[in-house]
Amino acid sequence: MVHYRNRYLNYIRRKPLALLAPITLLVVIYFYFFSAHGFSSSKQKYNYTRKSRGWFYKNRDTVILKDLPKNHISHYDLNKLTASKDALNKREEVLILTPMSKFLPEYWENINKLTYDHSLISLGFIFPRTTEGDDALKELENALKKTKREKLLNFKKITILRQDSNSLNSQLEKDRHAFKVQKERRSMMALARNSLVFSTILPSTSWILWLDADIVETPATLIQDLTGHNKPVVSANVHQRYINPDTKQQDIRPYDFNNWVESEEGLKLAASLPDDEIIVEGYSEMVTHRALMAHFYDPKGDPSTEMTLDGVGGGAVMVKADVHRDGAMFPSFPFYHLIETEGFAKMAKRLGYEVYGLPNYLVFHYNE
Amino acid sequence: MVHYRNRYLNYIRRKPLALLAPITLLVVIYFYFFSAHGFSSSKQKYNYTRKSRGWFYKNRDTVILKDLPKNHISHYDLNKLTASKDALNKREEVLILTPMSKFLPEYWENINKLTYDHSLISLGFIFPRTTEGDDALKELENALKKTKREKLLNFKKITILRQDSNSLNSQLEKDRHAFKVQKERRSMMALARNSLVFSTILPSTSWILWLDADIVETPATLIQDLTGHNKPVVSANVHQRYINPDTKQQDIRPYDFNNWVESEEGLKLAASLPDDEIIVEGYSEMVTHRALMAHFYDPKGDPSTEMTLDGVGGGAVMVKADVHRDGAMFPSFPFYHLIETEGFAKMAKRLGYEVYGLPNYLVFHYNE
Repeated sequence: MVHYRNRYLNYIRRKPLALLAPITLLVVIYFYFFSAHGFSSSKQKYNYTRKSRGWFYKNRDTVILKDLPKNHISHYDLNKLTASKDALNKREEVLILTPMSKFLPEYWENINKLTYDHSLISLGFIFPRTTEGDDALKELENALKKTKREKLLNFKKITILRQDSNSLNSQLEKDRHAFKVQKERRSMMALARNSLVFSTILPSTSWILWLDADIVETPATLIQDLTGHNKPVVSANVHQRYINPDTKQQDIRPYDFNNWVESEEGLKLAASLPDDEIIVEGYSEMVTHRALMAHFYDPKGDPSTEMTLDGVGGGAVMVKADVHRDGAMFPSFPFYHLIETEGFAKMAKRLGYEVYGLPNYLVFHYNE
Repeated sequence: MVHYRNRYLNYIRRKPLALLAPITLLVVIYFYFFSAHGFSSSKQKYNYTRKSRGWFYKNRDTVILKDLPKNHISHYDLNKLTASKDALNKREEVLILTPMSKFLPEYWENINKLTYDHSLISLGFIFPRTTEGDDALKELENALKKTKREKLLNFKKITILRQDSNSLNSQLEKDRHAFKVQKERRSMMALARNSLVFSTILPSTSWILWLDADIVETPATLIQDLTGHNKPVVSANVHQRYINPDTKQQDIRPYDFNNWVESEEGLKLAASLPDDEIIVEGYSEMVTHRALMAHFYDPKGDPSTEMTLDGVGGGAVMVKADVHRDGAMFPSFPFYHLIETEGFAKMAKRLGYEVYGLPNYLVFHYNE
């Protein structure tokens, strides 16, 4: 018989059940502390900063919200949630939303390079129910796994949705821009955007950044820059890098024409259309003479220059979460003859919010 | 010196640090199991029922969604989320949403009596930022605490929001119905409803029941009954109990006139109005001759009789969550000359959904 020099081990060896009581006690104690920690941390999560106004100031909210059973009950005071020009210092949470039918490694690398504190950033993706969407989802998952292996995956939360509605099967570039399929395609996209934002927005979300899956290059300070304007809706100017055939040099050209200012002609055209017809910018079939932000880029201009807009594209748009909470959505039906992101801009304005664009602040679209 | 007969205790007493190693080990082991349990349970939570089609059927979704780092990453396949006429058997989750400026004990008692499985029901409340709202919040909290003490609080989740927008201060009954304040009041209410639904809807929510805070009596099977109709939007008929002055007996009378069918006159009236004017049903200033569901109640009729509607009130309306996910919200601005719940019905229809009412299915409004 083996005999340990340690009397303690000998005792355990002969009467192993003697361990049962202390183990049970430890588990109970541990569970107690773990649970307490769990509750307090989940409570902490949405405990918006309270500005104390000194010892004698009685905070009415604190009085009202204290002393309630915490289990499964969450309190949120939407007034305490800020969306300010000092977003990072105030530790405001940002939700980046991307409808994705194609996964581009450059997109993923770019958002991983963003310098806003990743622990304040949540990501939301929605994939169409198509072979293309399935492939994109697999590629995103591989990218997630790789980033995770490298211990670089540090976003607060990632939500992946697969769309329930029927999706258009073909989104090849040449098909995608044909005017006749635009209405159906953008209507589907609007439904996807609505499902995405309304499934992922939390009471703690301050800002929502709509970032298209084919935006492959932005300044690393994108979130700080856009929130810094402190506007309800602000859109970057989407350009594209290409080889200029004349100079054989790298060059840039405007890409997204959905950021625009309404024109007399646009309004007249709208008035002339049947109720269910839409205007989509950038097609020769519909001449609107609207001022397109894409053409307002001045390489020598101040990147923080603002202009008011009436329509926005979805390339890179920062929206205060309250705008969506108030009900601003992406109409899949003609809303003032506009749909999707352009209809969203109109809806934000109907809700009393101003919409802005940054003509000299560029982000870049993939060149396929 | 005390000497225990148990050698184990004596050993611990003399060398207490000898416990350190086993404690550490136990904690580590426990943490491991607890964490594993935690992740798998949170994964389980949204693991929609998958219909296996036999051993040789390869489920594409399973292939795609497996083998991903689970921490902080959530997958939801909206196609697997059902909202069916067999809601309870399929264990579909219901979210009851109530904007509350006054707490009525009868409201709370009534929802606690609902026979749908409470573990599938989440509750969401939003309170206006007024003295009245503060009082209502305190009273709800007291009711929650009381129900909790009685160990009867078994809803899945309760979310309490305080509105961020300015709220109208006075909501006294006599003021509340004056036509001139209706537009502003209902516009505020629309914003409250939007904040509430878009902050509480989860990817796992199948149904949303809008239940006004002054609905004090419904059948206990309200949720089963309304989901049983399997309609995108279905509204109960809101009546009120009162003492009939003629008979001196308990009687009932129609209360909510916002459930209606559009009329020729209503459409003509709408066409004659400036863009920013609204039509609100039930005011002598605006004669619409719309068919009001309130008047269609037949005491001898089948409670499951359906009628199509063009406008709904907010009293007791069951909505498939997908309708909201697609973007249906409560317009705070005139939308086809309609706002709030009536505008919501129009928006649901613009999104391609049908709206129904149950003229013989009564719920009762508080009699103040």
